[in-house]
Amino acid sequence: MSKRNHRIKRDEAARQRRRTSPGAAPGTLKTDPDAPRPQIKVIAYSNQELVEQEIQQPSEIAPFLGRYPVTWINVDGLGDAQVLHELGEIFHIHPLALEDVINVHQRAKLEHYPGHQFLVFHQVDAGERIQSEQLSLFLGSNFVLTFQEEAGDCFEPMRERMRQHVGLIRQSGPDYLAYTLLDAIVDHYFPLLESYGERLDDLETEIIKSPETTTMTQIHDIKRELLMLRRKIWPLRDALNTLVRDPVPQVTDSTRLYLRDCYDHIMRIIDLLETYRELSSDLLEFQLSSISYKINEVMRMLTVIATIFIPLTFIVGLYGMNFDPNVSPWNMPELKWYFGYPFALGLMAVVTLALLGFFYRKGWLGGRPRVTSSTGTR
Amino acid sequence: MSKRNHRIKRDEAARQRRRTSPGAAPGTLKTDPDAPRPQIKVIAYSNQELVEQEIQQPSEIAPFLGRYPVTWINVDGLGDAQVLHELGEIFHIHPLALEDVINVHQRAKLEHYPGHQFLVFHQVDAGERIQSEQLSLFLGSNFVLTFQEEAGDCFEPMRERMRQHVGLIRQSGPDYLAYTLLDAIVDHYFPLLESYGERLDDLETEIIKSPETTTMTQIHDIKRELLMLRRKIWPLRDALNTLVRDPVPQVTDSTRLYLRDCYDHIMRIIDLLETYRELSSDLLEFQLSSISYKINEVMRMLTVIATIFIPLTFIVGLYGMNFDPNVSPWNMPELKWYFGYPFALGLMAVVTLALLGFFYRKGWLGGRPRVTSSTGTR
Amino acid sequence: MSKRNHRIKRDEAARQRRRTSPGAAPGTLKTDPDAPRPQIKVIAYSNQELVEQEIQQPSEIAPFLGRYPVTWINVDGLGDAQVLHELGEIFHIHPLALEDVINVHQRAKLEHYPGHQFLVFHQVDAGERIQSEQLSLFLGSNFVLTFQEEAGDCFEPMRERMRQHVGLIRQSGPDYLAYTLLDAIVDHYFPLLESYGERLDDLETEIIKSPETTTMTQIHDIKRELLMLRRKIWPLRDALNTLVRDPVPQVTDSTRLYLRDCYDHIMRIIDLLETYRELSSDLLEFQLSSISYKINEVMRMLTVIATIFIPLTFIVGLYGMNFDPNVSPWNMPELKWYFGYPFALGLMAVVTLALLGFFYRKGWLGGRPRVTSSTGTR
Amino acid sequence: MSKRNHRIKRDEAARQRRRTSPGAAPGTLKTDPDAPRPQIKVIAYSNQELVEQEIQQPSEIAPFLGRYPVTWINVDGLGDAQVLHELGEIFHIHPLALEDVINVHQRAKLEHYPGHQFLVFHQVDAGERIQSEQLSLFLGSNFVLTFQEEAGDCFEPMRERMRQHVGLIRQSGPDYLAYTLLDAIVDHYFPLLESYGERLDDLETEIIKSPETTTMTQIHDIKRELLMLRRKIWPLRDALNTLVRDPVPQVTDSTRLYLRDCYDHIMRIIDLLETYRELSSDLLEFQLSSISYKINEVMRMLTVIATIFIPLTFIVGLYGMNFDPNVSPWNMPELKWYFGYPFALGLMAVVTLALLGFFYRKGWLGGRPRVTSSTGTR
Amino acid sequence: MSKRNHRIKRDEAARQRRRTSPGAAPGTLKTDPDAPRPQIKVIAYSNQELVEQEIQQPSEIAPFLGRYPVTWINVDGLGDAQVLHELGEIFHIHPLALEDVINVHQRAKLEHYPGHQFLVFHQVDAGERIQSEQLSLFLGSNFVLTFQEEAGDCFEPMRERMRQHVGLIRQSGPDYLAYTLLDAIVDHYFPLLESYGERLDDLETEIIKSPETTTMTQIHDIKRELLMLRRKIWPLRDALNTLVRDPVPQVTDSTRLYLRDCYDHIMRIIDLLETYRELSSDLLEFQLSSISYKINEVMRMLTVIATIFIPLTFIVGLYGMNFDPNVSPWNMPELKWYFGYPFALGLMAVVTLALLGFFYRKGWLGGRPRVTSSTGTR
Repeated sequence: MSKRNHRIKRDEAARQRRRTSPGAAPGTLKTDPDAPRPQIKVIAYSNQELVEQEIQQPSEIAPFLGRYPVTWINVDGLGDAQVLHELGEIFHIHPLALEDVINVHQRAKLEHYPGHQFLVFHQVDAGERIQSEQLSLFLGSNFVLTFQEEAGDCFEPMRERMRQHVGLIRQSGPDYLAYTLLDAIVDHYFPLLESYGERLDDLETEIIKSPETTTMTQIHDIKRELLMLRRKIWPLRDALNTLVRDPVPQVTDSTRLYLRDCYDHIMRIIDLLETYRELSSDLLEFQLSSISYKINEVMRMLTVIATIFIPLTFIVGLYGMNFDPNVSPWNMPELKWYFGYPFALGLMAVVTLALLGFFYRKGWLGGRPRVTSSTGTR
Repeated sequence: MSKRNHRIKRDEAARQRRRTSPGAAPGTLKTDPDAPRPQIKVIAYSNQELVEQEIQQPSEIAPFLGRYPVTWINVDGLGDAQVLHELGEIFHIHPLALEDVINVHQRAKLEHYPGHQFLVFHQVDAGERIQSEQLSLFLGSNFVLTFQEEAGDCFEPMRERMRQHVGLIRQSGPDYLAYTLLDAIVDHYFPLLESYGERLDDLETEIIKSPETTTMTQIHDIKRELLMLRRKIWPLRDALNTLVRDPVPQVTDSTRLYLRDCYDHIMRIIDLLETYRELSSDLLEFQLSSISYKINEVMRMLTVIATIFIPLTFIVGLYGMNFDPNVSPWNMPELKWYFGYPFALGLMAVVTLALLGFFYRKGWLGGRPRVTSSTGTR
Repeated sequence: MSKRNHRIKRDEAARQRRRTSPGAAPGTLKTDPDAPRPQIKVIAYSNQELVEQEIQQPSEIAPFLGRYPVTWINVDGLGDAQVLHELGEIFHIHPLALEDVINVHQRAKLEHYPGHQFLVFHQVDAGERIQSEQLSLFLGSNFVLTFQEEAGDCFEPMRERMRQHVGLIRQSGPDYLAYTLLDAIVDHYFPLLESYGERLDDLETEIIKSPETTTMTQIHDIKRELLMLRRKIWPLRDALNTLVRDPVPQVTDSTRLYLRDCYDHIMRIIDLLETYRELSSDLLEFQLSSISYKINEVMRMLTVIATIFIPLTFIVGLYGMNFDPNVSPWNMPELKWYFGYPFALGLMAVVTLALLGFFYRKGWLGGRPRVTSSTGTR
Repeated sequence: MSKRNHRIKRDEAARQRRRTSPGAAPGTLKTDPDAPRPQIKVIAYSNQELVEQEIQQPSEIAPFLGRYPVTWINVDGLGDAQVLHELGEIFHIHPLALEDVINVHQRAKLEHYPGHQFLVFHQVDAGERIQSEQLSLFLGSNFVLTFQEEAGDCFEPMRERMRQHVGLIRQSGPDYLAYTLLDAIVDHYFPLLESYGERLDDLETEIIKSPETTTMTQIHDIKRELLMLRRKIWPLRDALNTLVRDPVPQVTDSTRLYLRDCYDHIMRIIDLLETYRELSSDLLEFQLSSISYKINEVMRMLTVIATIFIPLTFIVGLYGMNFDPNVSPWNMPELKWYFGYPFALGLMAVVTLALLGFFYRKGWLGGRPRVTSSTGTR
Repeated sequence: MSKRNHRIKRDEAARQRRRTSPGAAPGTLKTDPDAPRPQIKVIAYSNQELVEQEIQQPSEIAPFLGRYPVTWINVDGLGDAQVLHELGEIFHIHPLALEDVINVHQRAKLEHYPGHQFLVFHQVDAGERIQSEQLSLFLGSNFVLTFQEEAGDCFEPMRERMRQHVGLIRQSGPDYLAYTLLDAIVDHYFPLLESYGERLDDLETEIIKSPETTTMTQIHDIKRELLMLRRKIWPLRDALNTLVRDPVPQVTDSTRLYLRDCYDHIMRIIDLLETYRELSSDLLEFQLSSISYKINEVMRMLTVIATIFIPLTFIVGLYGMNFDPNVSPWNMPELKWYFGYPFALGLMAVVTLALLGFFYRKGWLGGRPRVTSSTGTR
């Protein structure tokens, strides 16, 4: 379980290191040598027709832009600075924005540039391990340009709807397309969060059953993963809020309604996230309390048994001494008493009963009737 | 107790899952197959007359809208997409709003649409278990349209007042009706919160009486339920605040006074909620402290008794050794002393008194007179 | 001590329940059957003269309003809906405001109504137990109307000053009168808070002297009472802030200076309150730390003593075995050695010294010289 | 150390009580009978000349005001209401402001009055104990009027610079003088805070060396003192911010630059304060962790030793029983075996080795090789 | 490890003390006697040419200012008040700003002065120990003036790019130069933070492996260093935000885009910082939980073993008593029974089994099957 986690963190750390080294000129395009080579796919459509085509050179894009009201250029893989550079030229992208596309460790953000909006966000996968992939989106007046780190995304159902002319996409502009992409990403956070809810649920049941054998590493893992998710989602909320409130030229009023809905979804995700974070903190505290409770119970048991037997053992040790009663009448005359043994047993019984009474009054025998006057919590 | 809770959480989880799956087109109406079929009930009224009627088809609503200044259409059950769709058409409801009606897992919110306001909030029931039901309300210039998940609500006293022409409802517009509904819902939170207050009260009494036998699962449960309630109420506060402050065309100034009062009630609920949350945290901390205190008390007792008897037991063991005093004068000559046994007993008495003195000076005997110079907390 | 507290909470709870039941029509006047019947007292004054009169019927108020620039109507007791209703009619009070007067569980607040300001706040008494009474104040252009739950208030010195024509009240309008009332209430919070300061002071001294016998229930009580006070004062601060900043027609600029001073006092009260809250949290933490420290000290003592004697007791037990040395030369030949007993004593001395050396190196004997290399906190 | 603290708190408490009693008329001047009698000192200056004079009657001030562009009247001691009243008349000071001067328990604040600004702040002394003295400052267009509780302040170097005509004071207006006073006060906070930094430093070193003998009362003291300082500085920050941002007629733009610098210093003080507060919390937590760590270490040691010797002691006790082997072959025949004693020793060796192996596998012997599968934290 | 830290703190403390003493005249230039003497280096450039020259006297700067659009004067070392004073005169720097340059303990800040912007920030070095150096930057319309505490900075790659005419610096104004400097500093925070991430990573792995031998001093160190870094970065964020948002005459719109990017980097640094701070808190809590868990496990083991053997030891002690069976039939007749020894062994077996059964039911043997009804956490 925790091995899985360590893999994730190492991956995160590795990705952090793909950054441009400090001291490099701003706007330098330095691609990660391990990144896959870009695959460019164009979907251009109007209400009447839809063209879908994989292209080799950025220069092939130009014709689409002129002919269709909306052109979606999706680039999977960031391994070729030259291709990115050409794309940047075609769409007049600022070098800083291009640099942010390549250095896939950005916070989610919305940046206004003349001619287009630049949006960065992250898609997460609720598979066996959390995988986060940066998605950079440029929204222009007649195009949407997206960059993904790798092939494979969660947009296939949406593409199918576009092909089938289902829903509003084909009748709407690039802003609605951008919204649909955002919405698909945001909705993918829900199953992930639900899985956390279920894990916390199970952990709670386990803790109630047996607090001391439940693995607290799991709660700690969940806390850390939620912390990471939070870092991804909070800035996205701010970005989206700007998109909804500010008058952005590329976004129409009708799409704004949809973006408001998307913002609403993010608010719900954040709600869930914060609730689960609090729940996991509560759970850890709860487990600690339960364990502390158990320690007390165990201690009490030990004290009662030890405290009863320690004096008894002393007594039996006493009469096990080898002082010679024959030498002097002072030397353990009890050993020669007629009722010596019963006397010793009786002595022990008296000690035991006295101690039991004391413990009972202290309430240490598990039962309730505790005299409160002598306890400090009063 | 905690089983009850688990039921609640599972229900919540189940309801979360009724969501549209990620990847679906926005605005898709996918009803929950287990949801009850809609029952539509119309109450239309003016100051002079009131008509109350259960209808089968949404199309039957139109005549009411023309004839009466206020028409309240209440739909219980969300199990038929077709009916909802028709209602949406009649009242010009945006598909996204309809989707929010069906996906009953929304945060409380107020959304402005042209022609009407859309308000989502939750009614809770203070019965044996917390039950939360989403209520979606559309407020137009001459209608109020409400959707509830199931039949059965807390509006019956209000309906009775409408029929009897008691209060201001009959003389007022749909905004006042909407306020009355909101107010009924909000006031239903109070008994629920009071029950938490009482449970916390009882728990505190119990903890003071006997901290180690009080069940901390209960405090944990209360904390979690309050966390859930909080998630429901905070967004409602924001929504209502918007309704009170912003110039909303469907709300008159006189009703705004009433909404301000309702907002005030929510503020009180939040006050109580936060107070109880803090109280339950304090209580948990208090119980832990008390238990920790008890551990200390028990430890001290164990230490005193063990530490006194351990040396004594050593001494009696010493004189229980079987070295043969006859072999050599060095071998335990005490055993043959005339006052050997009294000497041993005296030795033990001296050790006991020395230790008791030491403990007394340390303040470990429960009494106060502790010499502070040798203790670290100084 | 805690019994007192419980009384308070039960009272609070009882008062909460005096609320209008959920489902009642808004603005319904349902008086508490146990509430005392209203006593109405009028003080009307100008710079020249002052009239003070107890009246039976609300209708007797009218003449005063016309003749004097300022009329103060004080109502003690809220047990008669009819009287309140008549007063409401005379001063054009909104039904919702009247409802808030009767349901004495409001948050402090300021509400603007046409013709008057409505102010709710609470007076607390620093007697043996905290008593909180709601005070509702209506400030019009020529009257101040106050409602108190019971007879008896902290305004007597102020009334005396009015009669003696001391201070500015007689020369000023109703806004200055309202300020004076507020100021008297607010200043009554100080002695109460000071008593908390002193209790915390005493508790701290006690904890330093003897952490394990100090009653942590007291700290817990203080925390809860401060939490309650906080709920009363924070909203009052907001209300007063509004009164100071916003242009309220009934408040003149010169009175505004005084209200600013009153706001300043509230800020100081909040300061003290938050400081005491933090202090009490710190104190609880401090006590827990001290107790935890003591546990450690006790544990170390137990360990040292037990660990030294356990091997010794083993050795003496060993030579107390009854193997027959006569049967075989292998059976405990030591018992027959000439220096058998001194040998055994020497063995024990060696073990004791070795263990003492070990503990000394570990730093468990209380003295400092601890070799750090083998301890984990390094 | 803590006795010192208690003195401070009692002083604080005593000063709190010097307040006007609740119910007094606002603006009442009630001087503290123990306060020293006022000493009035006037420094009037222009760029050309400087006059410094101790005066007996407030009426002697008038000539200075007319002749010099800047007159600084400093009053040490607040023990004579009459003198204060006369000063109030001369400078047109509002009764509420005068009351705040006398009741030396104000929060730092800036209040605008027609004709002057009223500023309250506190000077602290980093001597053997924290001493806080309220300083009230009135800034007019040609005067600065300051009130201090007692003689003795930190302004002497500044006065010397004025006399020597060093720096900008002589060339500037009263606003620059007020700034210089503020700056001197604010800069006096730095050494105080540094002393806390050093104390925390030393405590940390001590805790690392020996957590269980470090006195946690000291950390607690520091926390409380920082809390008190914080209460003094935060409101001062707000007051100064207002002075810097708002267009105050008595403050020129060039002086505003200096006030901005002073504000900057306060921000640094707050920075340090909050950092030290967090550090002291961390330190307490760190000490508790270390102690908890030590408890664990001690427990483990005790367990290992006790658990090994307990079975051994049982075995030696077993063969110390006095059953008569002569009565029956079943009665402890081992005692008569030829290798009885070696057998018993061997049995003990086996038990010891088995337990050591068990502990080693559990990782309780201090060494690392712990088999993880059987531990719950996995 | 912590010794390193102590060095850092002492250095910090020493630097704090280099401040002007309280009471000094504002704007006094008092240089630190240990500070290195200033070395002034001028780089003046236009798009066509670049001149790089070390100068001896501030007066040599003037010619550059007239001839080149951008002149960068870098001063390493603050040890000569005269030189600084002359520089201040040349660039019309306010005395307060000069004072801030020398007193290298400022918070990061941006201050507007007529004619230039004054920016203070800190460069940190991720070497073996955190070293922080204050960098003061004046941005005028045709110059950038920087002050560093010591020679040696992270700007060399940037200078090289300037010389090679790589990037935009040579074509841009002084604002772009200032941006480049800021960017270099900010980017140097990343490797430092990453090293913390790795240390936390390693610590977590260690804690999971063996919580009780992991050194919590390390986590404490990291927390404190992050706290210090935070104090440096948060104010820088505010300063940069002002630079990006406010219309500053020296900053062009195109450079503003770059500054926005730099601001974005700071936001990421803060994100990482806060995440690591939370992670380290979680880690400490996690370690404490794990240790507490271990204590419980150890306690249970001790209890089980001790509790089983204590009664057995009592029994064997009992039959080790030396009561003389020959004196009376009541004196330990068991010793003479034919099956006396087997009876005693059987008695012990019965006791052992009974206790094991009890422990098994309590769930203290490590296995799960615990009867819940008798445990308090239910």
